[in-house]
Amino acid sequence: MYSVATDQDIQDMARGAVFLGSGGGGDPYVGELYLRRQLAEGRQARIVKAAELSDDAFVISIAGVGAPTVLVEHLVSTNTLLRLLEASQQFYGRKVDALISAEIGGANSMFPLALGARAGIPVIDGDGMGRAFPHLEMTTFSVYGCSACPSVLMDDAGNVVHVQTTTDRIAEDVVRAICASLGSMIYGSFYPMSGKQAKQLAVHDTISHTLEIGRRIRAARESQSDPIRDLLEFLNQPAEQRHARELFSGRIVDVRHETRDGWHWGEALINSGRGDTPEFSIEIQNEYLIARHEGRTVTLVPDLIAVLDAESAEPLTAEMLSYGQRVTVIGYSAAPIMRRAESLKVFGPRMFGINEDFHGVEQLVPESRKRA
Amino acid sequence: MYSVATDQDIQDMARGAVFLGSGGGGDPYVGELYLRRQLAEGRQARIVKAAELSDDAFVISIAGVGAPTVLVEHLVSTNTLLRLLEASQQFYGRKVDALISAEIGGANSMFPLALGARAGIPVIDGDGMGRAFPHLEMTTFSVYGCSACPSVLMDDAGNVVHVQTTTDRIAEDVVRAICASLGSMIYGSFYPMSGKQAKQLAVHDTISHTLEIGRRIRAARESQSDPIRDLLEFLNQPAEQRHARELFSGRIVDVRHETRDGWHWGEALINSGRGDTPEFSIEIQNEYLIARHEGRTVTLVPDLIAVLDAESAEPLTAEMLSYGQRVTVIGYSAAPIMRRAESLKVFGPRMFGINEDFHGVEQLVPESRKRA
Repeated sequence: MYSVATDQDIQDMARGAVFLGSGGGGDPYVGELYLRRQLAEGRQARIVKAAELSDDAFVISIAGVGAPTVLVEHLVSTNTLLRLLEASQQFYGRKVDALISAEIGGANSMFPLALGARAGIPVIDGDGMGRAFPHLEMTTFSVYGCSACPSVLMDDAGNVVHVQTTTDRIAEDVVRAICASLGSMIYGSFYPMSGKQAKQLAVHDTISHTLEIGRRIRAARESQSDPIRDLLEFLNQPAEQRHARELFSGRIVDVRHETRDGWHWGEALINSGRGDTPEFSIEIQNEYLIARHEGRTVTLVPDLIAVLDAESAEPLTAEMLSYGQRVTVIGYSAAPIMRRAESLKVFGPRMFGINEDFHGVEQLVPESRKRA
Repeated sequence: MYSVATDQDIQDMARGAVFLGSGGGGDPYVGELYLRRQLAEGRQARIVKAAELSDDAFVISIAGVGAPTVLVEHLVSTNTLLRLLEASQQFYGRKVDALISAEIGGANSMFPLALGARAGIPVIDGDGMGRAFPHLEMTTFSVYGCSACPSVLMDDAGNVVHVQTTTDRIAEDVVRAICASLGSMIYGSFYPMSGKQAKQLAVHDTISHTLEIGRRIRAARESQSDPIRDLLEFLNQPAEQRHARELFSGRIVDVRHETRDGWHWGEALINSGRGDTPEFSIEIQNEYLIARHEGRTVTLVPDLIAVLDAESAEPLTAEMLSYGQRVTVIGYSAAPIMRRAESLKVFGPRMFGINEDFHGVEQLVPESRKRA
């Protein structure tokens, strides 16, 4: 167990959460503000390993649901998350022993920490994907036996909805519809689970991972070393089945954004030289889903694609991309549990309309480009 | 208390429910089939006056939610309503003592009777509007102090959602969105209330009214008298503040239908003579909202507009109207509680975008046309 007690920790974690968001998950800034206020009021966010919990502990996920573009403009009411926790404990008929993030990428990394600090409940060092994904069924929890439902939804005005569907795919449609009818931003309790399930089903140590990623980037900047090289060294751990590759560096020469059906769609084209034909492309459906170099796939979902500012290594969400930016693109293998056949059936490339089989980034790109 | 025990009773009630639907509320046929099956299996639908209930009885409304055009194509699963009742009793923590219709117009007149027969629970002779309306907040229950929430929703697949909003207007948006996400047809428990509230807030005796209307039409046909004249005599009871007027007879010369945002929009134009300019018009938003004779308003919401086949006096929903039909249009005053100022604020003409003050049909049309 450790505590997050400084603003610097929170800033590091938020930066790491954007990196792991693979372009999606929204800007953690709103949750970051909320968490910093808790610390300013003398509270701490306690982080525990799943293994520290008893098997019969009661664990829930707390997450915001909404279009990322709405989230950015939305301020979390101080009391909504706390009222959601109370309503959830009443609905489930149990005191919550620990919180866990459904997705560590983006804004939903911060809400459990903020609420945990406020309510004095520990947060498990792990989540349900080790990245960001757009659907409730796209978690290791859901794939391996813990449904998102029954779930409790609440908005800032105090409207409450309980959802109990037969599948998490249906829950996704219902929750998305409720979200739209309540002004496009709600909070929910999902994936009620035991301590034993948390141990078995989570992608572990991902909060620590956000913190470490953020720290590396900051430390390299402060020491004036190359933050991207340092980060690649840290992330690339073949012995642990984690592989990181620098895929490309260049200037964004075209970026299309479109918000349709509450989703962010788009494509970014990147060029390194002076030729007219863009060499590198990234397809976006809320997250960065597939990166291609001269038409050849170099990383695809569920492996992570991170777009960083080429100088500062600041991770950029899809909304942040703009014409002319100099960026470096990193491919990073998803956690092993995310690459199993059962997982790929739910969030592999074909579930996003990509007509390709999944291949890991380490197969697609045997070696990183040499950095200058 | 009395029982509905014959198929003829049910057919009479269904016909009366279409009349009171003012063009909306959907075709009762699906609910009628369900109710007839209950009777065929030896069950009865028991109907009680609200006054017979104890003040602390527990009463809920059972209603189908969905676009009328979907309802027509949808068969009610035998078990869905029964499972909804069980889920509702569990959710509210009380045994249900009686059911009440939210709207007596159209299909929702039948579901409480069918479930009541199946489960052995009496149904109150009354409802929340004495007609059909498209929104949850448009009931006397809601206007005078009994919220539609907390409500329990269920679809045929067993998906369950509980809704507890701060206003019934918000509940309407949320329930409508959930309905769309679950395939456009769900059933719900709404307006949990005490026996005392049922006595105070309902539009009374409306089940009996559907039965009487249906019987009159049938009896007049069988005796070869004029069913429309007989019906007008029955409905026009100035001493009870109920007024009925024959507004127009003619041929439908134009009818526009459009299903947009899950709603039925349209207009019907009717002509009596050989002139080119239609003399009579009816505006439709799910229900018939306003009838105009040569441009002059002759009946408007919440008063009822009924369009009947000119020969058989068969009441026609908005979906049934078609070019060339010979029809007679009747204006019928809403129940007095529906015309109070508080009521008109929620379902008066301006709530439907009609820029006119409400005037009762008896003011707009002091006398019925003479029938030939």
